[in-house]
Amino acid sequence: MSNEPVALDHVLSTFDALWSPRVITQVNDYDVRVAKVEGEHVWHVHEHTDEFFLVLRGELSIALRENGAERTVTLPQGSAFTVPRGTEHRPASPGGAAILMLEPTGTLSVGDRHEEIPDHVDITTGHAL
Amino acid sequence: MSNEPVALDHVLSTFDALWSPRVITQVNDYDVRVAKVEGEHVWHVHEHTDEFFLVLRGELSIALRENGAERTVTLPQGSAFTVPRGTEHRPASPGGAAILMLEPTGTLSVGDRHEEIPDHVDITTGHAL
Repeated sequence: MSNEPVALDHVLSTFDALWSPRVITQVNDYDVRVAKVEGEHVWHVHEHTDEFFLVLRGELSIALRENGAERTVTLPQGSAFTVPRGTEHRPASPGGAAILMLEPTGTLSVGDRHEEIPDHVDITTGHAL
Repeated sequence: MSNEPVALDHVLSTFDALWSPRVITQVNDYDVRVAKVEGEHVWHVHEHTDEFFLVLRGELSIALRENGAERTVTLPQGSAFTVPRGTEHRPASPGGAAILMLEPTGTLSVGDRHEEIPDHVDITTGHAL
Protein backbone atom coordinates (compact mmCIF):
# COMPACT_ATOMS: atom_id res chain seq x y z
CA MET A 1 0.00 0.00 0.00
CA SER A 2 1.40 3.38 -0.96
CA ASN A 3 2.06 5.87 1.78
CA GLU A 4 2.12 9.39 0.40
CA PRO A 5 1.58 12.83 1.93
CA VAL A 6 -2.03 14.00 2.09
CA ALA A 7 -2.87 17.62 1.24
CA LEU A 8 -5.72 18.61 3.55
CA ASP A 9 -7.09 21.23 1.13
CA HIS A 10 -7.32 18.60 -1.55
CA VAL A 11 -9.09 16.15 0.76
CA LEU A 12 -11.56 18.85 1.76
CA SER A 13 -12.31 19.52 -1.92
CA THR A 14 -13.39 15.91 -2.48
CA PHE A 15 -16.57 15.95 -0.38
CA ASP A 16 -19.33 18.28 0.77
CA ALA A 17 -21.07 16.24 3.47
CA LEU A 18 -21.23 17.98 6.85
CA TRP A 19 -20.38 16.28 10.16
CA SER A 20 -19.10 13.29 8.18
CA PRO A 21 -15.40 12.71 8.96
CA ARG A 22 -12.85 11.29 6.51
CA VAL A 23 -9.91 9.26 7.85
CA ILE A 24 -6.76 10.76 6.30
CA THR A 25 -4.23 8.52 8.03
CA GLN A 26 -3.79 6.12 10.92
CA VAL A 27 -1.19 6.51 13.65
CA ASN A 28 -0.84 3.22 15.50
CA ASP A 29 -4.45 2.48 16.59
CA TYR A 30 -5.59 6.10 16.20
CA ASP A 31 -7.35 7.84 13.30
CA VAL A 32 -6.62 11.33 12.08
CA ARG A 33 -9.90 12.53 10.59
CA VAL A 34 -11.00 15.72 8.84
CA ALA A 35 -14.56 17.00 8.59
CA LYS A 36 -16.56 19.91 7.27
CA VAL A 37 -19.03 21.19 9.82
CA GLU A 38 -21.76 23.81 9.98
CA GLY A 39 -24.62 24.32 12.41
CA GLU A 40 -24.88 22.13 15.51
CA HIS A 41 -23.74 18.61 16.21
CA VAL A 42 -25.41 16.75 19.11
CA TRP A 43 -24.60 16.49 22.79
CA HIS A 44 -22.64 13.28 23.22
CA VAL A 45 -19.92 11.71 25.32
CA HIS A 46 -16.96 9.41 24.70
CA GLU A 47 -16.69 7.49 27.96
CA HIS A 48 -13.28 5.96 27.29
CA THR A 49 -11.31 8.43 25.21
CA ASP A 50 -10.23 12.02 24.94
CA GLU A 51 -10.96 13.72 21.60
CA PHE A 52 -8.63 16.25 19.95
CA PHE A 53 -9.84 19.06 17.68
CA LEU A 54 -7.79 21.39 15.47
CA VAL A 55 -9.57 24.06 13.42
CA LEU A 56 -8.25 24.22 9.85
CA ARG A 57 -10.70 26.86 8.55
CA GLY A 58 -13.47 28.92 10.08
CA GLU A 59 -14.39 28.80 13.75
CA LEU A 60 -15.63 25.96 15.94
CA SER A 61 -17.29 26.22 19.33
CA ILE A 62 -17.58 23.30 21.71
CA ALA A 63 -20.13 23.38 24.52
CA LEU A 64 -19.00 21.34 27.53
CA ARG A 65 -20.83 20.02 30.59
CA GLU A 66 -18.29 19.83 33.42
CA ASN A 67 -19.01 19.32 37.11
CA GLY A 68 -22.67 20.21 36.65
CA ALA A 69 -21.91 23.49 34.88
CA GLU A 70 -21.91 24.32 31.19
CA ARG A 71 -19.31 26.39 29.34
CA THR A 72 -18.44 26.92 25.70
CA VAL A 73 -14.92 27.14 24.32
CA THR A 74 -14.35 28.97 21.04
CA LEU A 75 -11.68 27.79 18.61
CA PRO A 76 -10.73 30.21 15.85
CA GLN A 77 -8.77 28.91 12.85
CA GLY A 78 -5.44 27.47 14.01
CA SER A 79 -6.64 26.62 17.51
CA ALA A 80 -6.60 23.22 19.20
CA PHE A 81 -8.52 21.72 22.10
CA THR A 82 -8.87 18.30 23.74
CA VAL A 83 -12.24 17.26 25.14
CA PRO A 84 -11.49 15.02 28.14
CA ARG A 85 -12.98 11.54 28.20
CA GLY A 86 -16.34 11.33 29.94
CA THR A 87 -17.18 14.98 29.24
CA GLU A 88 -20.49 15.66 27.51
CA HIS A 89 -19.89 18.03 24.62
CA ARG A 90 -21.59 19.52 21.58
CA PRO A 91 -19.53 20.96 18.74
CA ALA A 92 -21.11 23.73 16.67
CA SER A 93 -20.13 26.17 13.95
CA PRO A 94 -22.71 28.77 12.91
CA GLY A 95 -20.48 30.04 10.09
CA GLY A 96 -18.97 26.72 9.02
CA ALA A 97 -15.54 25.24 9.62
CA ALA A 98 -13.13 22.53 8.57
CA ILE A 99 -11.62 20.56 11.44
CA LEU A 100 -9.04 17.87 12.09
CA MET A 101 -9.73 15.31 14.81
CA LEU A 102 -7.70 12.66 16.52
CA GLU A 103 -9.23 9.69 18.29
CA PRO A 104 -8.85 5.92 18.59
CA THR A 105 -9.82 3.97 15.46
CA GLY A 106 -13.41 2.82 15.84
CA THR A 107 -14.54 5.84 17.87
CA LEU A 108 -18.12 6.67 16.89
CA SER A 109 -18.87 10.26 15.79
CA VAL A 110 -21.80 10.44 18.20
CA GLY A 111 -20.04 8.85 21.16
CA ASP A 112 -21.23 6.16 23.55
CA ARG A 113 -24.25 8.17 24.74
CA HIS A 114 -25.98 10.94 22.84
CA GLU A 115 -29.22 12.79 22.37
CA GLU A 116 -31.49 12.03 19.41
CA ILE A 117 -29.55 12.22 16.14
CA PRO A 118 -30.97 14.63 13.53
CA ASP A 119 -30.72 13.80 9.82
CA HIS A 120 -27.81 16.15 9.20
CA VAL A 121 -25.44 14.27 11.53
CA ASP A 122 -23.62 11.20 10.17
CA ILE A 123 -23.28 8.26 12.58
CA THR A 124 -19.91 6.89 11.58
CA THR A 125 -16.49 5.74 12.70
CA GLY A 126 -15.07 7.79 9.81
CA HIS A 127 -15.13 7.26 6.06
CA ALA A 128 -12.21 6.28 3.84
CA LEU A 129 -10.84 8.92 1.48
CA MET B 1 -6.10 22.33 35.93
CA SER B 2 -7.59 24.63 33.34
CA ASN B 3 -8.32 23.24 29.92
CA GLU B 4 -8.52 26.02 27.36
CA PRO B 5 -8.06 26.18 23.59
CA VAL B 6 -4.50 26.67 22.39
CA ALA B 7 -3.78 29.03 19.49
CA LEU B 8 -0.92 27.48 17.53
CA ASP B 9 0.31 30.85 16.21
CA HIS B 10 0.58 32.10 19.76
CA VAL B 11 2.48 29.02 20.90
CA LEU B 12 4.88 29.37 17.99
CA SER B 13 5.54 33.00 18.99
CA THR B 14 6.72 31.95 22.46
CA PHE B 15 9.93 30.20 21.44
CA ASP B 16 12.64 30.27 18.80
CA ALA B 17 14.49 27.00 19.41
CA LEU B 18 14.67 24.74 16.37
CA TRP B 19 13.96 21.00 16.46
CA SER B 20 12.70 21.42 20.04
CA PRO B 21 9.05 20.35 20.29
CA ARG B 22 6.50 21.84 22.71
CA VAL B 23 3.65 19.66 23.98
CA ILE B 24 0.42 21.60 23.38
CA THR B 25 -2.00 18.99 24.70
CA GLN B 26 -2.31 15.34 25.58
CA VAL B 27 -4.85 12.96 24.09
CA ASN B 28 -5.07 9.85 26.25
CA ASP B 29 -1.43 8.69 26.37
CA TYR B 30 -0.39 10.63 23.25
CA ASP B 31 1.24 14.05 22.94
CA VAL B 32 0.37 16.66 20.35
CA ARG B 33 3.59 18.62 19.84
CA VAL B 34 4.56 21.62 17.73
CA ALA B 35 8.05 22.53 16.62
CA LYS B 36 9.94 25.04 14.55
CA VAL B 37 12.41 23.39 12.23
CA GLU B 38 15.06 24.46 9.76
CA GLY B 39 17.96 22.61 8.18
CA GLU B 40 18.36 18.89 8.78
CA HIS B 41 17.36 16.66 11.67
CA VAL B 42 19.14 13.29 12.02
CA TRP B 43 18.43 9.84 10.66
CA HIS B 44 16.56 7.99 13.40
CA VAL B 45 13.94 5.34 13.95
CA HIS B 46 11.05 4.81 16.34
CA GLU B 47 10.89 1.04 16.65
CA HIS B 48 7.53 0.85 18.39
CA THR B 49 5.43 3.72 17.13
CA ASP B 50 4.22 5.51 14.03
CA GLU B 51 4.82 9.28 13.95
CA PHE B 52 2.39 11.79 12.44
CA PHE B 53 3.47 15.10 10.88
CA LEU B 54 1.29 18.04 9.79
CA VAL B 55 2.95 21.09 8.26
CA LEU B 56 1.56 24.34 9.70
CA ARG B 57 3.90 26.73 7.86
CA GLY B 58 6.63 26.34 5.28
CA GLU B 59 7.63 23.03 3.76
CA LEU B 60 9.02 19.86 5.32
CA SER B 61 10.71 16.98 3.58
CA ILE B 62 11.14 13.57 5.15
CA ALA B 63 13.75 11.17 3.80
CA LEU B 64 12.75 7.53 4.34
CA ARG B 65 14.68 4.26 4.15
CA GLU B 66 12.23 1.54 3.13
CA ASN B 67 13.04 -1.98 1.96
CA GLY B 68 16.64 -1.06 1.30
CA ALA B 69 15.75 1.96 -0.86
CA GLU B 70 15.63 5.64 0.00
CA ARG B 71 12.94 8.11 -1.01
CA THR B 72 11.97 11.59 0.14
CA VAL B 73 8.42 12.81 0.61
CA THR B 74 7.73 16.54 0.42
CA LEU B 75 5.04 18.11 2.59
CA PRO B 76 3.97 21.63 1.63
CA GLN B 77 2.00 23.69 4.17
CA GLY B 78 -1.27 21.93 5.02
CA SER B 79 0.02 18.44 4.23
CA ALA B 80 0.13 15.44 6.54
CA PHE B 81 2.16 12.23 6.58
CA THR B 82 2.64 9.29 8.91
CA VAL B 83 6.07 7.67 9.19
CA PRO B 84 5.46 3.98 9.90
CA ARG B 85 7.07 2.45 12.97
CA GLY B 86 10.46 0.91 12.33
CA THR B 87 11.18 3.16 9.35
CA GLU B 88 14.43 5.12 9.43
CA HIS B 89 13.68 8.72 8.57
CA ARG B 90 15.28 12.16 8.52
CA PRO B 91 13.10 15.28 8.53
CA ALA B 92 14.56 18.39 6.91
CA SER B 93 13.44 21.87 5.92
CA PRO B 94 15.91 24.04 3.98
CA GLY B 95 13.59 27.07 4.13
CA GLY B 96 12.18 26.53 7.60
CA ALA B 97 8.79 25.24 8.74
CA ALA B 98 6.46 24.91 11.69
CA ILE B 99 5.08 21.42 12.23
CA LEU B 100 2.60 19.58 14.41
CA MET B 101 3.43 16.03 15.50
CA LEU B 102 1.51 13.27 17.18
CA GLU B 103 3.18 10.44 19.06
CA PRO B 104 2.91 8.52 22.32
CA THR B 105 3.88 10.50 25.42
CA GLY B 106 7.51 9.77 26.21
CA THR B 107 8.59 9.31 22.60
CA LEU B 108 12.11 10.67 22.21
CA SER B 109 12.73 13.24 19.46
CA VAL B 110 15.70 11.24 18.18
CA GLY B 111 14.05 7.84 18.33
CA ASP B 112 15.38 4.55 19.68
CA ARG B 113 18.35 4.46 17.29
CA HIS B 114 19.97 7.42 15.61
CA GLU B 115 23.15 8.77 14.07
CA GLU B 116 25.38 11.18 15.98
CA ILE B 117 23.35 14.12 17.29
CA PRO B 118 24.64 17.56 16.25
CA ASP B 119 24.34 20.52 18.61
CA HIS B 120 21.34 22.02 16.84
CA VAL B 121 19.09 19.04 17.57
CA ASP B 122 17.32 18.86 20.95
CA ILE B 123 17.16 15.40 22.55
CA THR B 124 13.79 15.59 24.31
CA THR B 125 10.44 13.98 24.91
CA GLY B 126 8.89 17.43 24.38
CA HIS B 127 8.89 20.56 26.50
CA ALA B 128 5.96 22.04 28.39
CA LEU B 129 4.43 25.26 27.10
